[in-house]
Amino acid sequence: MTFTTAPAAERIEHDLLGDRAVPADVYYGVHTLRAVENFPITGTPISIYPELVRALAAIKQAAALTNQQLGMLDAERTDVIVRACEEVRAGALHDQFVVDVIQGGAGTSTNMNANEVIANRALELLGHAKGDYARLHPNEHVNMSQSTNDVYPTALKLAGYRGIFQLIDAMEVLRDAFHEKAVEFADVLKMGRTQLQDAVPMTVGQEFSTYVVMLGEDIERLKEAVLLIREINLGATAIGTGINAHPDYAGIVCRNLAEITGIPVLTAPNLVEATQDCGSFVQLSGVLKRVAVKLSKVCNDLRLLSSGPRAGLAEINLPPMQAGSSIMPGKVNPVIPEVVNQIAFEVIGNDMTISFAAEAGQLQLNAFEPIIAHSLFKSATHLRAGCLTLAERCVKGITVNREALRKSVENSIGLVTALNPYIGYANATEIAQQALVSGDSVYELVLARGLLTKAQLDEILKPEVLTQPRLPVGLA
Amino acid sequence: MTFTTAPAAERIEHDLLGDRAVPADVYYGVHTLRAVENFPITGTPISIYPELVRALAAIKQAAALTNQQLGMLDAERTDVIVRACEEVRAGALHDQFVVDVIQGGAGTSTNMNANEVIANRALELLGHAKGDYARLHPNEHVNMSQSTNDVYPTALKLAGYRGIFQLIDAMEVLRDAFHEKAVEFADVLKMGRTQLQDAVPMTVGQEFSTYVVMLGEDIERLKEAVLLIREINLGATAIGTGINAHPDYAGIVCRNLAEITGIPVLTAPNLVEATQDCGSFVQLSGVLKRVAVKLSKVCNDLRLLSSGPRAGLAEINLPPMQAGSSIMPGKVNPVIPEVVNQIAFEVIGNDMTISFAAEAGQLQLNAFEPIIAHSLFKSATHLRAGCLTLAERCVKGITVNREALRKSVENSIGLVTALNPYIGYANATEIAQQALVSGDSVYELVLARGLLTKAQLDEILKPEVLTQPRLPVGLA
Amino acid sequence: MTFTTAPAAERIEHDLLGDRAVPADVYYGVHTLRAVENFPITGTPISIYPELVRALAAIKQAAALTNQQLGMLDAERTDVIVRACEEVRAGALHDQFVVDVIQGGAGTSTNMNANEVIANRALELLGHAKGDYARLHPNEHVNMSQSTNDVYPTALKLAGYRGIFQLIDAMEVLRDAFHEKAVEFADVLKMGRTQLQDAVPMTVGQEFSTYVVMLGEDIERLKEAVLLIREINLGATAIGTGINAHPDYAGIVCRNLAEITGIPVLTAPNLVEATQDCGSFVQLSGVLKRVAVKLSKVCNDLRLLSSGPRAGLAEINLPPMQAGSSIMPGKVNPVIPEVVNQIAFEVIGNDMTISFAAEAGQLQLNAFEPIIAHSLFKSATHLRAGCLTLAERCVKGITVNREALRKSVENSIGLVTALNPYIGYANATEIAQQALVSGDSVYELVLARGLLTKAQLDEILKPEVLTQPRLPVGLA
Amino acid sequence: MTFTTAPAAERIEHDLLGDRAVPADVYYGVHTLRAVENFPITGTPISIYPELVRALAAIKQAAALTNQQLGMLDAERTDVIVRACEEVRAGALHDQFVVDVIQGGAGTSTNMNANEVIANRALELLGHAKGDYARLHPNEHVNMSQSTNDVYPTALKLAGYRGIFQLIDAMEVLRDAFHEKAVEFADVLKMGRTQLQDAVPMTVGQEFSTYVVMLGEDIERLKEAVLLIREINLGATAIGTGINAHPDYAGIVCRNLAEITGIPVLTAPNLVEATQDCGSFVQLSGVLKRVAVKLSKVCNDLRLLSSGPRAGLAEINLPPMQAGSSIMPGKVNPVIPEVVNQIAFEVIGNDMTISFAAEAGQLQLNAFEPIIAHSLFKSATHLRAGCLTLAERCVKGITVNREALRKSVENSIGLVTALNPYIGYANATEIAQQALVSGDSVYELVLARGLLTKAQLDEILKPEVLTQPRLPVGLA
Repeated sequence: MTFTTAPAAERIEHDLLGDRAVPADVYYGVHTLRAVENFPITGTPISIYPELVRALAAIKQAAALTNQQLGMLDAERTDVIVRACEEVRAGALHDQFVVDVIQGGAGTSTNMNANEVIANRALELLGHAKGDYARLHPNEHVNMSQSTNDVYPTALKLAGYRGIFQLIDAMEVLRDAFHEKAVEFADVLKMGRTQLQDAVPMTVGQEFSTYVVMLGEDIERLKEAVLLIREINLGATAIGTGINAHPDYAGIVCRNLAEITGIPVLTAPNLVEATQDCGSFVQLSGVLKRVAVKLSKVCNDLRLLSSGPRAGLAEINLPPMQAGSSIMPGKVNPVIPEVVNQIAFEVIGNDMTISFAAEAGQLQLNAFEPIIAHSLFKSATHLRAGCLTLAERCVKGITVNREALRKSVENSIGLVTALNPYIGYANATEIAQQALVSGDSVYELVLARGLLTKAQLDEILKPEVLTQPRLPVGLA
Repeated sequence: MTFTTAPAAERIEHDLLGDRAVPADVYYGVHTLRAVENFPITGTPISIYPELVRALAAIKQAAALTNQQLGMLDAERTDVIVRACEEVRAGALHDQFVVDVIQGGAGTSTNMNANEVIANRALELLGHAKGDYARLHPNEHVNMSQSTNDVYPTALKLAGYRGIFQLIDAMEVLRDAFHEKAVEFADVLKMGRTQLQDAVPMTVGQEFSTYVVMLGEDIERLKEAVLLIREINLGATAIGTGINAHPDYAGIVCRNLAEITGIPVLTAPNLVEATQDCGSFVQLSGVLKRVAVKLSKVCNDLRLLSSGPRAGLAEINLPPMQAGSSIMPGKVNPVIPEVVNQIAFEVIGNDMTISFAAEAGQLQLNAFEPIIAHSLFKSATHLRAGCLTLAERCVKGITVNREALRKSVENSIGLVTALNPYIGYANATEIAQQALVSGDSVYELVLARGLLTKAQLDEILKPEVLTQPRLPVGLA
Repeated sequence: MTFTTAPAAERIEHDLLGDRAVPADVYYGVHTLRAVENFPITGTPISIYPELVRALAAIKQAAALTNQQLGMLDAERTDVIVRACEEVRAGALHDQFVVDVIQGGAGTSTNMNANEVIANRALELLGHAKGDYARLHPNEHVNMSQSTNDVYPTALKLAGYRGIFQLIDAMEVLRDAFHEKAVEFADVLKMGRTQLQDAVPMTVGQEFSTYVVMLGEDIERLKEAVLLIREINLGATAIGTGINAHPDYAGIVCRNLAEITGIPVLTAPNLVEATQDCGSFVQLSGVLKRVAVKLSKVCNDLRLLSSGPRAGLAEINLPPMQAGSSIMPGKVNPVIPEVVNQIAFEVIGNDMTISFAAEAGQLQLNAFEPIIAHSLFKSATHLRAGCLTLAERCVKGITVNREALRKSVENSIGLVTALNPYIGYANATEIAQQALVSGDSVYELVLARGLLTKAQLDEILKPEVLTQPRLPVGLA
Repeated sequence: MTFTTAPAAERIEHDLLGDRAVPADVYYGVHTLRAVENFPITGTPISIYPELVRALAAIKQAAALTNQQLGMLDAERTDVIVRACEEVRAGALHDQFVVDVIQGGAGTSTNMNANEVIANRALELLGHAKGDYARLHPNEHVNMSQSTNDVYPTALKLAGYRGIFQLIDAMEVLRDAFHEKAVEFADVLKMGRTQLQDAVPMTVGQEFSTYVVMLGEDIERLKEAVLLIREINLGATAIGTGINAHPDYAGIVCRNLAEITGIPVLTAPNLVEATQDCGSFVQLSGVLKRVAVKLSKVCNDLRLLSSGPRAGLAEINLPPMQAGSSIMPGKVNPVIPEVVNQIAFEVIGNDMTISFAAEAGQLQLNAFEPIIAHSLFKSATHLRAGCLTLAERCVKGITVNREALRKSVENSIGLVTALNPYIGYANATEIAQQALVSGDSVYELVLARGLLTKAQLDEILKPEVLTQPRLPVGLA
């Protein structure tokens, strides 16, 4: 990230390193500016995650209201802080949240950025100049009763909560798309495979229904995991002991925050523990990894089943989305499942990053929450994009090669398994071996040997009979 | 693993590769023997996991009883199969479960191993020779109504269920050990630290109580995750369609299995999905990784807090367990936390292995469940050993350097945070900077400047006041 | 990424999906547009990696020249293609490289994007309208004798080569910064520690020199690994068989590319293998992970050694870069090492992503190279930023608490190890134990017992004697 | 690991924890016994890695000889220590190396175990009782001039060096097996695939030759990486400063060790750095991960190409190694590639464990080398087993379905790419689309349209022409 040259108009701010000119028109202040200079890592500002910015504003709003209720902040300052927060929550000033997504300092710079932007906007609302902190101070008023160490993890949890539910919405779209296909293909018989070897018949509907169930289960697991990040530590202040906080602060700010955001946040029972703990992030990321692993498996299946058009399995057809090759005329590739595979690989990598960062916490704090947040938010937002893209640009357009699939079942040696109870294991094995060598179908061989009649065979090999448990079929 | 030369006495068995001599005295048969030859990978047999062997026997017992109830297996064979299974569940014949923990074939060799051992023991109970499969057959009778693809994942889930609860027992021992120390050190004041920098005071009791809470939360998460592996797919047979199984089999075998094991197993609602899905293993491993990450952080803290004896933090003392060096007289090292750190690193690696294996599942089956099982069982059993060792050989013997800690608080610049509300931010900052340069204590500097009286300072800096939220102390 | 509404002026392009309006003023075409619509994943375009864009242009330039030399492309078209490529290599039109960094299609969209931008710019140079592909075609002329499957991996290698050397430059800056400090602190005695326990004396210079050596070794390893990605597969076309390519093409284009870029590229000996292989990326990422692991260890050390200011090790002081806390006056945190730790965690996660993506290659191609590239480029660029930041904003300003370190050595029990050869192991052990209990120094205890004279002790405990191997000191 | 009750005959040994009875007949002593009790983690003793035990003995032998040369150890003790070491190197007493592979203490217990076993065997050779350490002491004589911190990493490097070359031997066997098949199938034409979609023709020989090249490259990379672990730190003693060591010790012991082992070890230029650095292990593990990733890809290919027998690609046949199913008659599964896939997944997980352990090193030592060693040795030995198994039990028996492959090429739409230069891109595209819809072959359609003669088509579609670059075929 390159920081552009300061414009002519500047204001002077002060921190422990001394005086520093800040562009007059920006809402952030000296602390943010130092952080921008200190962390020129990715060039991506935290505003890439709008839910994080909104969450910070919601916390500042809840804190101001609580401080006023406790008699610690006057009505005038409370009013403008609340108005500034509401503006940010509505989408304003996000371009002022400029610190890098990868930053040192355990989130202090993100919290400082929020304090400064809200303070300067509140000063404006009061009719004062930006930087006139004697009237309304980023740390003393906007950050009152707070510490980065309780504000920042709480903001991550609020933003994560929203992000997970947005992901769940997308997963439901994808699940529904698979469900429609499972219904559409309910009567299409095909060969099931284990270890990539022909096994026994099933329907394409059954195959696609597994994706519906998988996604449904993953949604349930996400809903459980997201409950864990409702537990916040506002009121913990520096290390969880609540030093310098009013004894009633934690309880009231939690209620205020729940009301403002609509998220049913709870105060953690042990704030010292809650301040240093990243367990819920690790667990949530673990569930996102589970989602990724299974989504990748689904995409592997789709790519495999649509392999061809001639020299592959060619069971299903994915809708063409773009030309696949400049050198090979007419080639079309499974680009949508491929991009989802890659998102899955990224999510698995992110989970490893989060594990490392969580393990590296020391004593009363984990200083590495910024990379945890960045990794977690990337995982959730990219998975969301992947699910929507997969649903809209791939699954909804899938067609099935019904006739070829029917033939593959008829032609399959695996059919012999279904005949086991009727012709005996010894006959079955013999026919299987003969079929493999001769290339004949099991159906023909059974008929040729007179083991069953055509009517009997057709009865036994009915799709609705082949693809579920059954009582022995009467053959008399 | 080297397979020793067959003894003089042999019996001949047959499989699709032809005839094969099997040592006359072993209970396993040709399929097991082929597997032993095919997979000479680790030298570690599956009997290293006794709960897995017991689980296999429990499933075979439940299946035999179910088959009898459905009129498919006669009473005589049922009886001896059940008796053989009960013997294995009681610990017998585990040395006959010889296939390698890392094996191809999606667990088929493990299932075959169980079928053969139980069949041969049952044959013995019937008074027949081992290998006389015409009378009682490993596949036709012991494996009746089953497939590796439903037996094996079910066995993994039963064994995993037991293993997780054994781990939970050990975690409770560790949690209780930390709890005792938290109580013992409840009134010992120390400096809390964030980002390894001095922050504000807390008690050692508060610090140790975080470990109690962390472990308690992890136990809860494990109890939730273990519920997911209660869901079994017995009755799915080859690919989940239940081909060749009686329609009532799945329901009855589940009830029988629950009764035999005491584990509240449930039949998965969609058996096709359940047969190919590894999501619950991925999730469970993710929670074990969470446990590992946090346990490693705790051990990092213990090693850091006990660093010294002279040139370290030297806040606590770990009990000496062995000499630390041959070259440095008197050196003692934190060997117990160190071994737990390493177990944690192993568990995190295992989780990655499991993610890879789960993602590699294809179509109707995941062929890589053996490495998932091996990784998961290693994680659970090593974590269990680590927790017990940490509790018994480290935590219970921890002592605290009370006086030094008291001095470090008195001497700390961080104390100034507590004085903020009384002497103002400007005074506080000035005093902090002067203290850092001069080496004087905040206490002395405040007194010297006459900002507060000694009585006031002593009142404000009382441990019970410093380490929790409070209403403003009256100073008039 | 949201694609904004098309402006009034449009041109119509055609692909296998049919006609499609493209904004008249953009240089990319219909294939790029489809890709932008298909892959709305991260919102980050490939132009975030300027070296990748430059590499694509260099390849197109080399190919055009080669095609001309082989009589396949006329001089006029060659000329404008070359001019367009040189413009892009000089930095022009990068904003036209708009496909997402995470994309399906094995890089086809990136290659198509390059073909279209260069074709349209070349058309302009010819005086024709953008989109007038009958005169100069993106695939037929710009992409002549090429396939995505040889162009894309070659571009990744060129860009990776540049990126690694830019990283090496930054590592050298960091190494030099540590070297200066190693020299500055060459005579500062301190206690060395093993397993966080006091061991034996060393100098701060020795400690910092290890970082110099580590970085130097890592630079060597990177230089070795980067050699592996010099090996390119241009001429492989679709799958490495070189179908439809002139037999002399591969050799000539490689020489042309080397000349244009100054990078000593080589043609892989087996192009079928080279087209599907990601081994060199996996290896390079593995070395970047090595760099990350060690850099993280260095930062852990810096944070530990600077812990305090009162209740930590407080051996060194990192320069303050920003205020550390709004609630704790005067607190300063090690924010620069912290951000480098987080970059390291990201790089380790990226390596996992790359491993997954590489393993997922199938048959004649790895379709997942886009995520490999994105992960690798992120690792290299973020590590580079981290090294420069660490050097400039941290290491160069480090100071050492010389006096406290001297006292910690004098006060250390570990000194007794050095006395071993003179007073015997039994005396040494006794003194070590007494010192630990009484708090006295080894120095005083030895003197008090009359085991050595003060002159002898001072001789033995000289820094230059303590911190290296030595012949026995004469004590007579 | 459970430690069995001490037999009646005991001897008493002493350490800093006090007196302790040791079974009279064991060669290890009190330090080993404490370690066995402290680390009951995996139940697997270090003797599982015989090369590690041999390496420890080689180091002790080299050290004893060096100490004698420097006049520090008498001839009698040197002689028996050397004889004891030679016995261990020849395979004796390995069952006395009983500490757990996962252990705290940075390898101290492993080093102590070696010191004690060698001392007691040497005492026996002298005619003294085990435990009579006054005559020959584990630490003072066997461990003279050494520290765990230089002995242990050196032993890991020697054992790793041997293990890597044993792996390389196995990889060469596998490479040769693939080479034989590449030659055997050199003229078998098949369809190449990119992104699982039909691309252009190639030969099975070309396909298999890529595996030969891949393995060859991986062998080269391993040979490079193994060079890095030749660099040892003997002479570093406690932290690398060489405290208490003779200035000539490091040089002489290195030469002695090279002579004894035949491994060209070198002394690291900076011993302080070498003592704390795990970079070469991280790098070596990274290369093993590369090997695993590529081997897994090869096995994925083999499983995919042999899928079937009817409803899969069915291009090649793997030799049947065991029955694949009890429920499905005649089913055979690709169990050997499957087991190799799982080894690869394990190796990737091990690499993650190693990364974590390496990153966790602190200051002058990495305490977590035992888990690094265990992970690295597992990776090397399991990969070796996997390569041999894959070569012997799978690759050597592979056959190819020549006729079906020929038909798939003739029937392929991808053929049209080869016709591009002769019939033009427009005709090619039209024919491709018609073929896809109608199911006709490109060959027939071209003939039917009279675009080329049968002779011309047969000329163009010759395998040796299709599967390499070529000059335009004359068609006049």
